[in-house]
Amino acid sequence: MRPFTSTISLAEARRRLDAAVRPIARTERVRLEEAAGRVAAADVTSPLDVPPFARSAMDGYAVFAADTSGATRALPVRLHQVDRIYTGHLSPTAITPGTCAEIATGAPLPAGADAVVMVEETAKEGDEIQIFAQAAAGHHVGRLGADIRAGDRVVSAGEWLSPSRVGALAAIGGVDAEVFAKPRVAILSTGNEVVEPGRALAPGQIFDVNRFTLGAIVSMHGGEPEPQRPAQDTIDALVQSFDACARADLIVFSGGSSVGERDFVADAIAARGEMIFHGIAIRPGKPTAFARVKGVPFFGMPGNPTSCLSNAYILLVPFLRAIARLPPYAPRTVRAPLGRRIVSAAGRHQFHTVRLEDGIASPAFKGSGDITSLSRADGYIEIAADQSVVEEGALVDVTLF
Amino acid sequence: MRPFTSTISLAEARRRLDAAVRPIARTERVRLEEAAGRVAAADVTSPLDVPPFARSAMDGYAVFAADTSGATRALPVRLHQVDRIYTGHLSPTAITPGTCAEIATGAPLPAGADAVVMVEETAKEGDEIQIFAQAAAGHHVGRLGADIRAGDRVVSAGEWLSPSRVGALAAIGGVDAEVFAKPRVAILSTGNEVVEPGRALAPGQIFDVNRFTLGAIVSMHGGEPEPQRPAQDTIDALVQSFDACARADLIVFSGGSSVGERDFVADAIAARGEMIFHGIAIRPGKPTAFARVKGVPFFGMPGNPTSCLSNAYILLVPFLRAIARLPPYAPRTVRAPLGRRIVSAAGRHQFHTVRLEDGIASPAFKGSGDITSLSRADGYIEIAADQSVVEEGALVDVTLF
Repeated sequence: MRPFTSTISLAEARRRLDAAVRPIARTERVRLEEAAGRVAAADVTSPLDVPPFARSAMDGYAVFAADTSGATRALPVRLHQVDRIYTGHLSPTAITPGTCAEIATGAPLPAGADAVVMVEETAKEGDEIQIFAQAAAGHHVGRLGADIRAGDRVVSAGEWLSPSRVGALAAIGGVDAEVFAKPRVAILSTGNEVVEPGRALAPGQIFDVNRFTLGAIVSMHGGEPEPQRPAQDTIDALVQSFDACARADLIVFSGGSSVGERDFVADAIAARGEMIFHGIAIRPGKPTAFARVKGVPFFGMPGNPTSCLSNAYILLVPFLRAIARLPPYAPRTVRAPLGRRIVSAAGRHQFHTVRLEDGIASPAFKGSGDITSLSRADGYIEIAADQSVVEEGALVDVTLF
Repeated sequence: MRPFTSTISLAEARRRLDAAVRPIARTERVRLEEAAGRVAAADVTSPLDVPPFARSAMDGYAVFAADTSGATRALPVRLHQVDRIYTGHLSPTAITPGTCAEIATGAPLPAGADAVVMVEETAKEGDEIQIFAQAAAGHHVGRLGADIRAGDRVVSAGEWLSPSRVGALAAIGGVDAEVFAKPRVAILSTGNEVVEPGRALAPGQIFDVNRFTLGAIVSMHGGEPEPQRPAQDTIDALVQSFDACARADLIVFSGGSSVGERDFVADAIAARGEMIFHGIAIRPGKPTAFARVKGVPFFGMPGNPTSCLSNAYILLVPFLRAIARLPPYAPRTVRAPLGRRIVSAAGRHQFHTVRLEDGIASPAFKGSGDITSLSRADGYIEIAADQSVVEEGALVDVTLF
């Protein structure tokens, strides 16, 4: 066995991870129905004016604005209605002084009209319309191109496609969008004891957990998980696995990154790439490696399910989102008093899961190997490396899962 | 035209919406790879103990704890190594007093051993192992069932499947999960002027925007959008559309809900269901209807893209998530000074979009019909119905998109 002789701080690990980010360059076209939540890969300029015609912004009457001068409820102006204009087609009848046309929201303004009086400010007697309020030119009119002008940039490369940005692409007649591809993330659990769910366990074996927890995190943060079969604990098997994952944009292994006789991840990295760090002063999650393997960034996560997943939250998510060009993730936090004193490992940044009950944050951490340390928790608190105790009743910031 | 004679407050609209929620009952089985983010539809109890054997929690030496009594770095205890135990198979050699076995993290504890001393607290000379620290029985041992006991409830019906809960299902050998179905949300834009993107616009026509913005919102909040072709502005066409959508769990139309001659949504509702409210004192978004149509909850959203989408944020998202049994959505907010005075409509709760630049929230709202009111904004502020002005420099809470 080869115990860790040194570890780096969490801050230093984050610094090296940030420096290793290469945002994805590959792009793809997706249908507009699938574009929300993706990142635009190209500027999009409008080929047309939106709206493509001047239209009414209200249900009411299209008027020649000057006709309404001085109109009030006590002294209404009377106009003669010459048309009724619905949405979707043009009126053949021009408005001349003294006339008006009933008009629906979104219908094209008729020739001659330059304002709309909303129906609430009118009264109707046959074709005689009383106007109760003065309207300036342009009032309640959506002029041609008021929303988007031909040539306007509707979406910029690098922008996150919110529902409204997808709507803007639809407004200019788009049917698809050029977006950055989702990073392909190869996920693999190492270990002779690890068995895929659905098979029978032999003595000494356990089911693969990390492939599922990592796959879930990757999907939720803009990646495309590519789960692999578990690999045996030999250098050859690991090197072969590296080769099989070389087309991925990011590789995440779990297990084999610690100090045991058969922890061969470091040896496999030596054969195929360069180590960027190995061992972080955090708990759980110390035996974590980060490397570049055949040019692809590589996380060697601990095999313990809780260590692996907590590292995914604090290290993998920010890295993956940066590669995917997604905005940083800001998880919800709540402040609550701690239900029970926690003693933290000296010199290691600690990630401690808690359950929220009746406004109290109760420690929920069992062991690094226990997935229930997380699955029965609501979130986690972080305890800095230079802090050794958090007292019962202290206010803690709980990051929610 | 039939102007609104009254509107209800936003609070009253929310109360009626809450009262109309019927959480989805339909369930489906999904592969574990697809289960994260879904809601468990059944309790799941474990058929096995996890781990299914006592295992080492560290790389080190499996010992008979009593042997280590009094061991220190100055006065080490010496034990004879009789085996080397890797993960994935059982050791045939029992530990007897005076002996130990090298053991890897996750490997089964050999018979006779009841504790593990981590490698960092040992030194090795051939088969002679020096132990530098005393270990109590159970030290660094993950006992059989320590994580999950056979019969334990691993996931409860109604729980949101976080990555760790998916991991817990994998740990007990699960390959799929029973989850609540995603609500099917029929989405349809009404209006003679509305054309599907990809076609050519005739004079007076515009492209369908709401189908895409609503579809994006629905996907992001746990629904399954079922977009329909635009419907013409006739009662018959709307009633036929209702009939076509009757298998959905929720129906969202846009357009036709206002006061114009051809705003027939209210008439179509009268023919097929019961109106729950029509007209809310909000801006934009006043001409909004909510009904039950052939037993299915129905939103009649305004046709204006910004009114439609802002209503989706404030009304549809909470309703949809409640139907989908998802936890309430808590969007990110930031506090910032307002860059320019806003005058708000008296008596109407206002949803005003803003752009964040250099820490200042600048008003970004153009018009209800302009999708760029939202697509060029970063979020929105809300101005209560009883507030008529927000001054420049006032601190506002911006809800981010």
